[in-house]
Amino acid sequence: MSSTNQVPHLQTALTGPLKELERHFLENQAEIESWFRKQFKETPAPFYASVDLRNAGYKLAPVDTNLFPAGFNNLHSDLRPLAVQAAQNAVTQACPIADGVLIIPENHTRNLFYLENVTILQEILLAAGYEVRVGSLNPDVTQKTELELPSGKKLLLEPLIRQENQVGVEGFFPCAVLLNNDLSGGRPAILENLNQTLLPPLDLGWANRYKTHHFTHYAKICTEFGKIIDLDPWIINPLSISRGPINFKEHTGLESLAEAVNLVLKTTQTVYDEKGIACKPFAIVKSDSGTYGMAIMSVNSPEDVLSLNHKQRNKMSSVKEGLSVEQMLVQEGVYTYETVDGAVAEPVVYMIHNQVVGGFYRIHTGKTATDNLNSPGMHFEPLSFETSCVLPDQTQDPDASPNRFYAYGVVARLALLAAAREIDDAKKRQAAKAASQTSN
Amino acid sequence: MSSTNQVPHLQTALTGPLKELERHFLENQAEIESWFRKQFKETPAPFYASVDLRNAGYKLAPVDTNLFPAGFNNLHSDLRPLAVQAAQNAVTQACPIADGVLIIPENHTRNLFYLENVTILQEILLAAGYEVRVGSLNPDVTQKTELELPSGKKLLLEPLIRQENQVGVEGFFPCAVLLNNDLSGGRPAILENLNQTLLPPLDLGWANRYKTHHFTHYAKICTEFGKIIDLDPWIINPLSISRGPINFKEHTGLESLAEAVNLVLKTTQTVYDEKGIACKPFAIVKSDSGTYGMAIMSVNSPEDVLSLNHKQRNKMSSVKEGLSVEQMLVQEGVYTYETVDGAVAEPVVYMIHNQVVGGFYRIHTGKTATDNLNSPGMHFEPLSFETSCVLPDQTQDPDASPNRFYAYGVVARLALLAAAREIDDAKKRQAAKAASQTSN
Repeated sequence: MSSTNQVPHLQTALTGPLKELERHFLENQAEIESWFRKQFKETPAPFYASVDLRNAGYKLAPVDTNLFPAGFNNLHSDLRPLAVQAAQNAVTQACPIADGVLIIPENHTRNLFYLENVTILQEILLAAGYEVRVGSLNPDVTQKTELELPSGKKLLLEPLIRQENQVGVEGFFPCAVLLNNDLSGGRPAILENLNQTLLPPLDLGWANRYKTHHFTHYAKICTEFGKIIDLDPWIINPLSISRGPINFKEHTGLESLAEAVNLVLKTTQTVYDEKGIACKPFAIVKSDSGTYGMAIMSVNSPEDVLSLNHKQRNKMSSVKEGLSVEQMLVQEGVYTYETVDGAVAEPVVYMIHNQVVGGFYRIHTGKTATDNLNSPGMHFEPLSFETSCVLPDQTQDPDASPNRFYAYGVVARLALLAAAREIDDAKKRQAAKAASQTSN
Repeated sequence: MSSTNQVPHLQTALTGPLKELERHFLENQAEIESWFRKQFKETPAPFYASVDLRNAGYKLAPVDTNLFPAGFNNLHSDLRPLAVQAAQNAVTQACPIADGVLIIPENHTRNLFYLENVTILQEILLAAGYEVRVGSLNPDVTQKTELELPSGKKLLLEPLIRQENQVGVEGFFPCAVLLNNDLSGGRPAILENLNQTLLPPLDLGWANRYKTHHFTHYAKICTEFGKIIDLDPWIINPLSISRGPINFKEHTGLESLAEAVNLVLKTTQTVYDEKGIACKPFAIVKSDSGTYGMAIMSVNSPEDVLSLNHKQRNKMSSVKEGLSVEQMLVQEGVYTYETVDGAVAEPVVYMIHNQVVGGFYRIHTGKTATDNLNSPGMHFEPLSFETSCVLPDQTQDPDASPNRFYAYGVVARLALLAAAREIDDAKKRQAAKAASQTSN
């Protein structure tokens, strides 16, 4: 078996022999890495992304791809140089002359864990040799505000200002502007029509982005990738169906949603039967836009969406910053069979540019293998290096500690590629719009 | 203190409070990293290099910069993804369309440790998504030869062949050709006038390269760098004087050499007096070309080079693959005050592209703080991660485990930059030669 070193050798919760899928990925490493290299040359990777995975053993699939990752503080610090190098590549590609990077964070100034994440991002870019300042969209930040964090670090927030076609903070208007704000609340006017490079582009905020687009690209990528390494794409691709408009409060569109749930459950049962998988299919119903884990539920039958009580319907209607739910996504549920200290766990893979820079487990002691774990009560467990790998032992069988985290890195990068194609679509739409405006 | 994460957080043998120099580097990290980024943008880093350092506490200096590093098997495997990412950057910069890389190794097929190094290089490039094959210059390799190594890995050597202006192995003539052969035996005709990209260029083999050029660039770089962070360049720059031609067997040129030794010792004593350093200066006399650690000696007085006995003179005359010593370098000796298990140790820093990818200690139980350690009897100790850093502790004082390996990474990259400028000189000479041939 060849070595697997593009992806850091991290410890997963699973032990025991490699699963068929993991083995297949490891055996095809050369083809996989060569293919990724060419794909990301053709369609540049986003500045960063995190991907939530679910691992059922017989299926390993992404369930959420976040273009504004907010958990850099949960990554293993030994991997920092990897993040620094990747960040340098990402900034250079986006903006070769950049000397500085402006970070635009989320507005919540009281979520200290989130703010720790911002300081880590700042440190990564600083170590890559860039001046970094943080400009806040929050109207309450009217002057330089230094926040003291639990780690003992300090974060300086400055009010974001606009000068002609540039945003910045006092005396600092760099060519690269890094969004760490998912724009669930809409497209801020201050960020429109900039001549700076916004990473990722404004169109990829949740105000514009639909998960359906992502998973449509993802499904296509799975088919392409499956041909490269002779893999049944079903194993890595969750069936996803978009439905809407749906208004839970006013009970409109629920029939159509139930129909989609039925289709997902039936189709999944058929494949389970074919493959001899003795599990009961379930479906995840979630907002087609960003959710912060709120408008999301796990269902076992079409009736589940028709028989929601008042409280449940209210919950499905309330998403981050009051964005109303209209479009919904019904997705094949993937069991998570990984557990950490007895609690169900979901691996989250972090990437900068085209590089896996770490990961952690999202753990929820109060949930089961079919539940959404991105909900209050969750906690995080950074992934450590495989200990058997800490001291290289030349006499050890090279197969001794295969990198089972590699499989997570592969599937996460397939989702990353889907995000890259979303960005490419957005850029093409922008270019077409600009061309049509010119011709008018 | 800002975090230091461009350079991996490795454990050095030194403990106790940070030395003044280490602290100064850490405090100026942002300026240092920004400066390096710009320098390597202007003058691309070599594909790879290793730098031997000596750390006397009051002085930290490079003593050898190897453009054909042969100890990748001694690096910590946890850092492999960093090497893979850097290799991808290096190949992309040199040859954006490359799909494959040809490695040309040293000729010795019986040095199993060296061959392990070649397999690691191959693995790194494979994981970066390139097809990799190994073409040997060794005339004994007349057909595909599979070697079984102590690690259990296998290495396939193939005879290097030439087709018009390309070298390769059967059916494989990639645009990128990686030299891991220092060409001490001269410039092989088969490698002249290729239209492939040779990494590093042929002119950087020891048949053409002089340490004097390297240390002249290095001294200039120390002055430039010293201005950026307000550092006395003496602290990182060993005085180096070139003398020759010298023939030890025939006793010619030895007076001039003794004079240079005298100058180095006197000048060093003056600085030691100024700075109150209570050490006795010594000098290293070594071949100005590659040596493999053979034609090298540590001297305490000019007389030492005049009173060499027959055996010592023979030793100074015999360098790798019979290249006769003509030009010598007299260099200020730097004590190494690092010890591992009581034995003197020299840090060796490995870089790919512009990235530090690991390091190890060269350890010699039979030597003292003034001796050359690159000699028979040495062994290697990979550097591990600082254990205090393995589990990130948000409540820990951010100063708790400062990265003292960072200072090594900085000085090693200054030497890397000197090598980059050597390559740039060689390219300019080539271009001038080509222009003059065209105009004739």
